[in-house]
Order: sequence, then structure tokens, then C-alpha cells
Amino acid sequence: MGSKTTSKPKTNRTKKSKTKSGEDRYEIRLSGSGGQGLILAGVILSEALGIGDKKNVVQSQSYGPEARGGASRADVVVADGEIYYPKTMKLDMLLALTQEACDKYYPDVKEGGILIVDSGMVTQVPTKKYFGLPFTQLAREEIGIVMVANVISLGAIAEFTGIVSKQAIKDAVLARAPKGTEEKNTKALELGFSAARKLKR
Amino acid sequence: MGSKTTSKPKTNRTKKSKTKSGEDRYEIRLSGSGGQGLILAGVILSEALGIGDKKNVVQSQSYGPEARGGASRADVVVADGEIYYPKTMKLDMLLALTQEACDKYYPDVKEGGILIVDSGMVTQVPTKKYFGLPFTQLAREEIGIVMVANVISLGAIAEFTGIVSKQAIKDAVLARAPKGTEEKNTKALELGFSAARKLKR
Repeated sequence: MGSKTTSKPKTNRTKKSKTKSGEDRYEIRLSGSGGQGLILAGVILSEALGIGDKKNVVQSQSYGPEARGGASRADVVVADGEIYYPKTMKLDMLLALTQEACDKYYPDVKEGGILIVDSGMVTQVPTKKYFGLPFTQLAREEIGIVMVANVISLGAIAEFTGIVSKQAIKDAVLARAPKGTEEKNTKALELGFSAARKLKR
Repeated sequence: MGSKTTSKPKTNRTKKSKTKSGEDRYEIRLSGSGGQGLILAGVILSEALGIGDKKNVVQSQSYGPEARGGASRADVVVADGEIYYPKTMKLDMLLALTQEACDKYYPDVKEGGILIVDSGMVTQVPTKKYFGLPFTQLAREEIGIVMVANVISLGAIAEFTGIVSKQAIKDAVLARAPKGTEEKNTKALELGFSAARKLKR
């Protein structure tokens, strides 16, 4: 898989602790285009964090003038304590599966925040500090269904950020996998873990 | 279908205007238990409102200590103008598909707000002013799949509240229906329209 990674992280910004600098709030945005399953990915990640890892989570989608372009997004705010303000303010982590989503949402990433892109889709990355994996290509070539690019991404997010436990994300993926697709979804998630682990080295 | 309705609305509280008393904000909660497809229903309703009807919409799920019981919920806030505060405060409309969800969330309904319950599941309704339809039973007996109770509910919500256009909700249901299930989902939605229309008379 290592040969498929198209960028190496320039700094070691992954931390195993769930928040940086002791702040009790972590903001995640999953973005791309409609049809890439990002809202479902947001729901799965939230269920993993909220039900599996027992955090407080608010997961949201907004639709408005700015949302009627091609870009689709799902936001997840997670904290140990209560979440008083449920909207994202400055992202700790952004996943961008398309160039358009990357261009649109990168400005919302806070300094030191983590950017994860689909390296096959996002060719002009606005920073040198990012993680790139070809999620869509991996889904097609390794699993045989493009649709699981979102699940591979969730595996990579778990590995890169350490924000969610692997057991919780596994359980949440399985709980939401349509009957008959459990095996492919599990395989996709594990591919996300391993591809990200190799890239981090 | 008329014979299947188990309660008549005691007052005519449905309005065709999108908000009551000219307020530019409408808060909806879809509630029940996990597995009833309420988050998907919230996503479909939001896409209908935001993409089809061009409203501003924030759709959210919360997971926290209070959410780890059996009750599941999805919240939708819709407005013509900008939504500054995305959390629900006082519900204009509550859908409750289980007794537990009805007991838990009815206190959040504002005075004059609309309560819609699954009359086969919610046997102790905390008010006399409500709409009751046996969504789960209708799904099983008329469509042949229990899983579409959420889509029947969406049809009833459109008919009872007038908050979302029927064309927009049809388009949104079809956009989210898994391949091969389009016909059953359309039938389920139209059953929701007609059952609610009969009950309103």
C-alpha cells in the first residue's frame, strides 16, 4: 500500500490524546461531493464516539445558499464535557475527498489542524502539511466498490487522529453496514487503518 | 386507510404557511428507537427543505449521556433567513414512533406545536391534541416492509405541517432510496400523504 500513498506527512502532527493543548473539544469536518457517503460517514463516526467511546457528540449537516454547490459536508463536534455551541468554529481535522471541498473548507482548519485528502482527487493541496491517501482508488482496486471510500477514510481518520477507538469505529461501521456488506466494510475499514499506519511511518 | 387511523385531530392546527405567527424558524424532531431510520428520515427531510425548497436548514443528532438510552432522535431547524442558533429550543413539531420517545420529548414541544405519533406504538399520548397514524403497521401491511415506516411518516409530516413541498420530499426520498427500492419508497410516501389527508378531514 505504501507505493500508493502520494504524500508523506511533513510533520508528526498526530497525537494519541483526543485533544490538543488540553482543550476539551475537537471539531471534525468530512467533505467531498454528494454521493460519496459523507453524511453516513459522519453518522458512523458520531455513533462510534458517542455510543462506543461514551463522548458527547453533536453531528450536523447544513443546507443553505453556500451548500447548494457541489460540495457536501458533515460536521462532528466531540467533547468529554457538555457541548454548548454545536456548530464548528475552527476545525481540528478536515477530510476532503474532492478538490472543490478542499479549496472551500481548508480555510476553516485551525493552525496545527490535520488535513486529510484523497490524493487521487485533490491534486492541488493548499499546504505542505497534510496526509494524502488515494481513498477512492483504494476502494475501487482493493475492495471492488467505490462506495466504501468513506469507510476507508474513517479507518484512516482513526489512525491519524486517535480521536476514536478502533473497536468503537469497527462496531459502528458494522451496525450501519447493509446486510451482506459486513465483510467488505470491515475490510475497507482495516485497509484505512493499515494504509494510514504505513503513511505515518 | 381511514379505518386504520386511531385518533382524530382535536383541533385544526395544520397551517399551510411554513411558520406560525410569522416567525422565521421552524423546529422539527423525529424520534423513536434505533433502527427505525429516523436519522435517514432527518437527512431526507433536510435535503428536501434545503435543496428542493431552498430553505436554510441545520440537521443534527446528539449523542451524550441522555442519548444512550433506547430513544433515537434527529433534529431539523429550518428558516428562510440565516440560522444563528442551530440547536432546537422549543419544537414546532414532534414525531414520536415509540412510547419512550413520546414521553421523553413531548415536554420539548411548544404550546400549539404539532405532535404526530405512531398510534400502534404510542398508546398513552400525553395530550388530546395530536395526530395518530399506525405508521409501522401501515408499512408492514400496505407496503410489505416495516423499514419504510420512516418514509410514510415523512409523507404524513408534509401533509400535516405543510412545511415542505410534496415535490421536494418526493425528490429527496428518491435520491436516497437504495437502487431497486424506488417504487416501494414512493408508494410509502404517497401512503403517508393520503393517510394524513384522510385523518385531517
